[in-house]
Amino acid sequence: MKNTRFINPSGFPENLPAEQLVEDALKQTFATTAASYGYTHLETASVEYMDTLASKGDVSKEIYTIGRALGEGDNNDEADRGLHFDLTVPFARYVAQHQGELWFPYRRFQIQKVWRGERPQKGRFREFYQADVDVVARENLALAFDAEIAVVMASIIETFGIGNVTMHINNRKLLNGLFASLGIMAATEALQAIDKLDKVGEGAVRELLRTQGVADAAIDALFGFILKPVELTDVAAFLDTLPNDIEELVLGKAEVREVFAILAATAATPHVRFVLNPKIARGLDYYTGTVFETTIDGLEKYGSICSGGRYADLASRFTNQKLPGVGMSIGLTRLLSILKAESLKDFGAMSSVLVLMCLANETQLIPTLQAASTLRREGMAVEVNYKHSVTLGKQIEQTKDRGIPFALVAEADGKFTLFDVVNESKEVFMDIAEVVAKLFTK
Amino acid sequence: MKNTRFINPSGFPENLPAEQLVEDALKQTFATTAASYGYTHLETASVEYMDTLASKGDVSKEIYTIGRALGEGDNNDEADRGLHFDLTVPFARYVAQHQGELWFPYRRFQIQKVWRGERPQKGRFREFYQADVDVVARENLALAFDAEIAVVMASIIETFGIGNVTMHINNRKLLNGLFASLGIMAATEALQAIDKLDKVGEGAVRELLRTQGVADAAIDALFGFILKPVELTDVAAFLDTLPNDIEELVLGKAEVREVFAILAATAATPHVRFVLNPKIARGLDYYTGTVFETTIDGLEKYGSICSGGRYADLASRFTNQKLPGVGMSIGLTRLLSILKAESLKDFGAMSSVLVLMCLANETQLIPTLQAASTLRREGMAVEVNYKHSVTLGKQIEQTKDRGIPFALVAEADGKFTLFDVVNESKEVFMDIAEVVAKLFTK
Repeated sequence: MKNTRFINPSGFPENLPAEQLVEDALKQTFATTAASYGYTHLETASVEYMDTLASKGDVSKEIYTIGRALGEGDNNDEADRGLHFDLTVPFARYVAQHQGELWFPYRRFQIQKVWRGERPQKGRFREFYQADVDVVARENLALAFDAEIAVVMASIIETFGIGNVTMHINNRKLLNGLFASLGIMAATEALQAIDKLDKVGEGAVRELLRTQGVADAAIDALFGFILKPVELTDVAAFLDTLPNDIEELVLGKAEVREVFAILAATAATPHVRFVLNPKIARGLDYYTGTVFETTIDGLEKYGSICSGGRYADLASRFTNQKLPGVGMSIGLTRLLSILKAESLKDFGAMSSVLVLMCLANETQLIPTLQAASTLRREGMAVEVNYKHSVTLGKQIEQTKDRGIPFALVAEADGKFTLFDVVNESKEVFMDIAEVVAKLFTK
Repeated sequence: MKNTRFINPSGFPENLPAEQLVEDALKQTFATTAASYGYTHLETASVEYMDTLASKGDVSKEIYTIGRALGEGDNNDEADRGLHFDLTVPFARYVAQHQGELWFPYRRFQIQKVWRGERPQKGRFREFYQADVDVVARENLALAFDAEIAVVMASIIETFGIGNVTMHINNRKLLNGLFASLGIMAATEALQAIDKLDKVGEGAVRELLRTQGVADAAIDALFGFILKPVELTDVAAFLDTLPNDIEELVLGKAEVREVFAILAATAATPHVRFVLNPKIARGLDYYTGTVFETTIDGLEKYGSICSGGRYADLASRFTNQKLPGVGMSIGLTRLLSILKAESLKDFGAMSSVLVLMCLANETQLIPTLQAASTLRREGMAVEVNYKHSVTLGKQIEQTKDRGIPFALVAEADGKFTLFDVVNESKEVFMDIAEVVAKLFTK
């Protein structure tokens, strides 16, 4: 390398071909599964006005602004613009801007890069893919959508094929109602304490709640309810054990009951387990009902790989139209790095090619290309080797090294020799139609 | 809308759902077709060091730099970075950086957004999709790849289904050799003049060449060769009419002959016509052999929608390894705007959903969801209407308005009513299996 400056900046990850195949499969699965539920694809511009990106007027230091490599005397009239740091803000702006041109409830999925000026470190990137599904309605959104979003995301994760996964579902009204019922007045502080359970453990959180003035009996009762996730089949019975003295709690119980009833009747994802996890809080401001987190079984150390929830109003900063919604989000780039670190996916596939046409002799170029075209018309991915200077033996070896299962040679007599490089066998066929028939049986 | 600042900045285009369906189909076609020829998907980071982006040391004013929304006392340590303005520079940097980890010849396709700070105007965008195919080798790349790139791109454009298209192919050695043979010494200036033919016409270019000191007889001879594109079947005969007195010309003729011989024997794209167009120049510096341009028949006013060529060395700024290559590039966002302006694609499809499950009665929610799951397992895209408050008649109407062909209702007696909203007919089925069978015959 001539110059070490000619590399990609750190924090802006890139894939080698084998990794790219896995990332593409994840994206493709996300898109086709979401579309099979009627979610339409949205892609927003990468650049937004800073006013749009500013949450409640504050601009985060992590936002990347854009400028121009300017000569003297020029003005940068784009200093008021930056790169989006998530997909929710652009989605909200887009819905507000195009309300009159969309069908509601508006189901959308979005798979795009986002940019954050974080200090690069393991699992943290400055540029990364996020993949979101959301549905928003005008004024009212049926509770059944909370279950639908969970089912869509579970179907996506099931199709990812990354082992067993647990989707933890809770409802903000349930937790808040429980606090009220147990006489815990400082709900915000109690939530923040509960949020630390996985990090600091039960003892430390007990101590924290005690310093907040919560009585030991209340802590015992609270922990009795929230410490253990409740399996799908036990949710109805569990809900019956909760008090009924607080309206918000009663409402939360009804919502959880309905969402889990739908999941119990319709979920068909053997590798994704739904549980009610009453300690899940997911921040404080945004979510108002159902909340979701997702962990890979045995790899809970990575935290949630896919989270979201129900919100009362998507775009209150951009429009007066009330837009309640529910959604979930996966950090795809981060998930890819986990799959790689934990060998949850095969990153060894070098190629998606089925047949490598090898050229033993220059005179066979045209028949070779014609055979390749025939195979492609049958839906096969076929690559052609033009290196007739390399011996056929070397070309067969390369086929194997590159992870391509078959090598095919157009012989001078019009016949074809097919090399199965995995089983190290070869067979001669009269014409390309015979080769096609053979490959379809493989 | 509360505030006009809450829209997307001009020059950063966004699609409505129907447009997005067309754009996605173009991208999908590009990716699957390129992959079927063994091209692997590359996605580079959006951000590069300015040193990398600078061509021969000069940074274009059009490059977007990135910065940070900083507080006091912070330093912007990323002022040396910018957003890529094309896919060739990042591709070159990537190949130089990962030489040891790639198979050569390295076939890659890349479909990504690029950014250019141009003044927004019709057909010009500040953020747009580009889609490239290239193949690079170490030291030597077989000429057959020039034909392969043309065939790959023609297959892609054929599958786009945008009507009849002409791919204009030339060879820089042919044109330069012709200049030398005709005694035209100022080849660069002559090329620049020829490049203006489509814009200013034959008379003006004649005048221009005359002022460069080219004799009338030479101009006549030159125009005799270059003014008319040569059909695929006439190329060999045309080449025979060209002089043989200049080595570069002889070499150019041999290259054109081989490339067109392969195209004649293997091309199978009824809507993409290959012609030898000897006046195509495509800039001055980069390309060294075959060059490509592509126009939509009858819409030549838009210029080339897809261009490229053969280059002697991809990454001479980044590595001492010689990397000859050949490639072509489509401006997808620009193509989409042409397809829309000229109605070359149906932008009326509102949805890719096949069946809208309508809910006539709240008690039917679970059977409705279960039926939807069954249809999805058969590969159908199915959306569920949770609005049981809306009459069934209204829901059927919405199905039609949204461009969804079928509405399905799970009846209380376990039967299903299927509404064909296009043909305005309905039919009752005993169970969901019967519905599946019926839909497969449609």
